[in-house]
Amino acid sequence: MTSDVEISGVGMTAFQRDAERSILTLMETAVDRALNDAGVSVGDVTSVHVGNMAAEAFDRRSGLATGLAARYGMRPACVDRIENTSASGASAILRGYEALESGRSDVALIVGVEKMSGVDTDRATDVIGRIVHEREFAHGVTLPSFAGLAADAYLRRHDADRRALSEVAVKNHANGANNEFAQFQREIDAEEVEASPLVADPLRLFDCCPMSDGAAAVVLTSEGVGDIVVRAVSSAVGTHAVAERDDVLRVECAGTAGQIAFDRADAKRTDVDVACVHDAFTILEILELEELGFYEPGTAWNAAMTGETGLEGDLPVNPGGGLKARGHPLGATGVAQIVELTWQLRGEAEGRQVSHARVGLGINIAGFGNNAVCTILSS
Amino acid sequence: MTSDVEISGVGMTAFQRDAERSILTLMETAVDRALNDAGVSVGDVTSVHVGNMAAEAFDRRSGLATGLAARYGMRPACVDRIENTSASGASAILRGYEALESGRSDVALIVGVEKMSGVDTDRATDVIGRIVHEREFAHGVTLPSFAGLAADAYLRRHDADRRALSEVAVKNHANGANNEFAQFQREIDAEEVEASPLVADPLRLFDCCPMSDGAAAVVLTSEGVGDIVVRAVSSAVGTHAVAERDDVLRVECAGTAGQIAFDRADAKRTDVDVACVHDAFTILEILELEELGFYEPGTAWNAAMTGETGLEGDLPVNPGGGLKARGHPLGATGVAQIVELTWQLRGEAEGRQVSHARVGLGINIAGFGNNAVCTILSS
Repeated sequence: MTSDVEISGVGMTAFQRDAERSILTLMETAVDRALNDAGVSVGDVTSVHVGNMAAEAFDRRSGLATGLAARYGMRPACVDRIENTSASGASAILRGYEALESGRSDVALIVGVEKMSGVDTDRATDVIGRIVHEREFAHGVTLPSFAGLAADAYLRRHDADRRALSEVAVKNHANGANNEFAQFQREIDAEEVEASPLVADPLRLFDCCPMSDGAAAVVLTSEGVGDIVVRAVSSAVGTHAVAERDDVLRVECAGTAGQIAFDRADAKRTDVDVACVHDAFTILEILELEELGFYEPGTAWNAAMTGETGLEGDLPVNPGGGLKARGHPLGATGVAQIVELTWQLRGEAEGRQVSHARVGLGINIAGFGNNAVCTILSS
Repeated sequence: MTSDVEISGVGMTAFQRDAERSILTLMETAVDRALNDAGVSVGDVTSVHVGNMAAEAFDRRSGLATGLAARYGMRPACVDRIENTSASGASAILRGYEALESGRSDVALIVGVEKMSGVDTDRATDVIGRIVHEREFAHGVTLPSFAGLAADAYLRRHDADRRALSEVAVKNHANGANNEFAQFQREIDAEEVEASPLVADPLRLFDCCPMSDGAAAVVLTSEGVGDIVVRAVSSAVGTHAVAERDDVLRVECAGTAGQIAFDRADAKRTDVDVACVHDAFTILEILELEELGFYEPGTAWNAAMTGETGLEGDLPVNPGGGLKARGHPLGATGVAQIVELTWQLRGEAEGRQVSHARVGLGINIAGFGNNAVCTILSS
């Protein structure tokens, strides 16, 4: 590595169900905001990397990155799309980061996007369902059912209360209520979570992230240009088939990617002031906090209950509402995490600002924990 | 750039219509061959980059790279899929190249793959059709119709004979006849091309590449390990909407990517001993040879007629059969070009070996010339 990579601009669309706007329009809105925020003009962009999971299947559209460059008349040297299922956004950040590290690009525009509305629901469910290992898919196991099994195992093994899961959703909704870009901007209480329809016992509807449309963008530049330093971006694959894991409560790829990131950033767990984790299901927030070493195994369930992961707690988690309340447009999520962390580290997260936020961590997960990308930023 | 990037192993499947083998099995066959050729074990691979255009749409499958890593039990640090429509393969090579340049990876496995058989034909046609600009797509213009319009304009402007197009197909079929991995391993004559059904006047069926299934793989390593040097990989976007181009006979992105590659490689056109160009339609081979600077505008049409681009000519083009005869599994093509060039530069292309081949060039095109990736190799 020759020099630091920095963030000089971020922007995103509101995350919502929005069948009207095209995927290109979603990208354009996020890009306009990020370029404006960075004070970078279209002609300065030297590479474009789009993180997107399934536009071909959802929208019959490939070549998103070229389509975006064409809209702006951009002529950057390198334009591509990166896919790593639900971690496509963070993989695109990593791809742009390496473009800068390699010396090939000096202003990399990263855009995460997904348009899930207006899609044939059976087809969307089928494509999302096939994120899991093909042998497990053949048995009918889905992401929610894996999450339900893990939640059940966790609560039993650690003698934890189902209320612990509810409080993760309650916290993230409370945060989302203060985020104008969040899909759900209203507070809920634990009773509402527990009265919502059962999805995969013990998980209920309000334990699960929604289907969303949206885009988020980040401008990465060389040292001395931006205001937020990307101290590390690292990725790791884990065991794809859940049945092959030694422990059903481990999300090893998150732990591995996290450890590499901490090593590269030369940072300690206690340095982290704010984290955005991949709470596609409430149980995942708990498992990831343990896997990343913020909590000992079997102890993170209590964190949302006691307020430790709330905005005023020791380790505020998902201040933007997380996947649960901000929404989860698949390929956009990993980029939106970096947008939120940037706002937090700049002190711009009005209404949900974490105090004294200097170091932020994001973790974006693919499949049911088969691949993870971890990013550490500092102001 | 700190050191050279080299190719230490290549491999591919036969390209054919093959609805039976899964996309993962196709990748596995190519990877086994490339790793074996490189003498690299699974545990040595530090990053995996899959080039694929549309597995979500064709096969309802995302996360190909993680799926592949899981099959081998690989635990490389970075695993992702790259998409750039029909140039996805070469974009994956560029992505792996940058991973090495950035110092993040020292053994990058690149796999290009597409499975087009067993796909709902209407859906496949629709997804491929949408490679063109959305406004042009709305008017019903398709890749073959653009190619037909360009061919017609070319023949008229340069007072060239339709036979010139036929001879490109004849040459590439003659080459494919000596390639055990080619989809069409039989020679044809110009009369057969001209008697084939009309697709988009003046282009006929035998002017067009087929639908194919297949995979190709390349192992990139640091200096001193491999036997072929990657002297440059460069990419460039061009004008997306064909109607916005100043000249309908220009494929500017190919020229730009080519110029950058020649500059980076510090090579001249006359240094190139063998080239693999993107002959999705016969007219494209001609246009690209002119755009890359091998021929003056309006003169390349004669090259196949006179044998200049044949195996014994001054500049042998598409010795493996090109997209026309080897086949065109979209995301696999850009990688297959590099596999063929490697065989040529090593002197391993039995039955179709170009003599004294020391420098090779590959050009892989997205859309109808909206993005191109150019690679220059030397032995």
